Amino acid sequence: MSTAHVNRTSSYQYQPSGNSYKIRPAAAILNIKISLKEYDLLKGESRTPHFLSNISANGSVPILQIGSDTFLPESGAALYYLATGSALIPTDRLHHAEMLRWIFFEQYQIEPNLGSLRFWSRVMGLENVDEAKKSQVESKRQAGETALGIMEQHLASRPYFVGEKFSLADVALYAYTHVCGQAGFDLSQWPSVKAWCERVAQQPGYVLIHDEVWA
Amino acid sequence: MSTAHVNRTSSYQYQPSGNSYKIRPAAAILNIKISLKEYDLLKGESRTPHFLSNISANGSVPILQIGSDTFLPESGAALYYLATGSALIPTDRLHHAEMLRWIFFEQYQIEPNLGSLRFWSRVMGLENVDEAKKSQVESKRQAGETALGIMEQHLASRPYFVGEKFSLADVALYAYTHVCGQAGFDLSQWPSVKAWCERVAQQPGYVLIHDEVWA
Repeated sequence: MSTAHVNRTSSYQYQPSGNSYKIRPAAAILNIKISLKEYDLLKGESRTPHFLSNISANGSVPILQIGSDTFLPESGAALYYLATGSALIPTDRLHHAEMLRWIFFEQYQIEPNLGSLRFWSRVMGLENVDEAKKSQVESKRQAGETALGIMEQHLASRPYFVGEKFSLADVALYAYTHVCGQAGFDLSQWPSVKAWCERVAQQPGYVLIHDEVWA
Repeated sequence: MSTAHVNRTSSYQYQPSGNSYKIRPAAAILNIKISLKEYDLLKGESRTPHFLSNISANGSVPILQIGSDTFLPESGAALYYLATGSALIPTDRLHHAEMLRWIFFEQYQIEPNLGSLRFWSRVMGLENVDEAKKSQVESKRQAGETALGIMEQHLASRPYFVGEKFSLADVALYAYTHVCGQAGFDLSQWPSVKAWCERVAQQPGYVLIHDEVWA
């Protein structure tokens, strides 16, 4: 796959974040060299006046820097930019829309549930979160189980999410799913999801999430 | 724009929902005739055993039905499917990724804040929501204001979200934004967003959201 068009690409990351993580296996699979710039969310490094004014008003990572002055927020958009024209994006119209469907599903039903519970559990300690967060733990747990159930049902008869082939949908969904144990979910309850995680981990571009900093 | 490839397209909708609404102006602009099938979320019609087994395990609308047996959830994926090959989707690689960026932003920062507050305010009454929801009202209000501020900053120097042209990003963002007054936001605080809403309403395909059922 050609990488000439993505020269001088950097990613502003917080490496333990699942959203940031997605960029790294995608770049590895695509053989795109990106330089990583670490921004520690716990220290508010993505919310400094400089970051908000010059990099992204969203105050979030990952950001894909393209050339010297273009900054692209949203992990799904960054993945798509990197993978444009590659085999990670189906060309069939319906498969393409289904790939997007699963990336949206991930941002709406996986990340806010598995991702938040993982962050609250690993970094803050569930017993230490404020009352507003505490009142959401049970609904996020249920919504996360529902989401994993939808994935389980879909994967029971398919090796990957779209068109029998590994795609960006798998890259996006893998990030928080494979570490859902850190959020209090037991992956053995969803055996097809567990087997899919193992298939994804065998992809040539597989790289670890690097969250040892939380250990 | 050709519509031959999207014959026999239906959308399962709940018309007052902003996510469902997006499909209708997109189809109108693209001159695609879709038949609408109404599912009342308030009556749980998208969560019946039949819906969950045969239409979508997500239990949500909108769903785009393509042909007789393909059902596509996620409004962003449905919009992309409908608009594939049209002028609503930029062909430039960066503009395309920026369009996706704003559609993801909408699902992550607008819909869960403006959309939830609108639903809680209009349908349930803010004073009647349960304690878990009540504890989120203020954080959703703040997150919604932040999101509108990001839109304001972006639109201060541009007519539309991406590449100076009306795109799917505008269709997606308009849905909950133009009725944010129903969620307790005052659009006059974000004059560039307000002016953009007026520009969008002048598009040839503009159709109303139809939420009179809540009146």
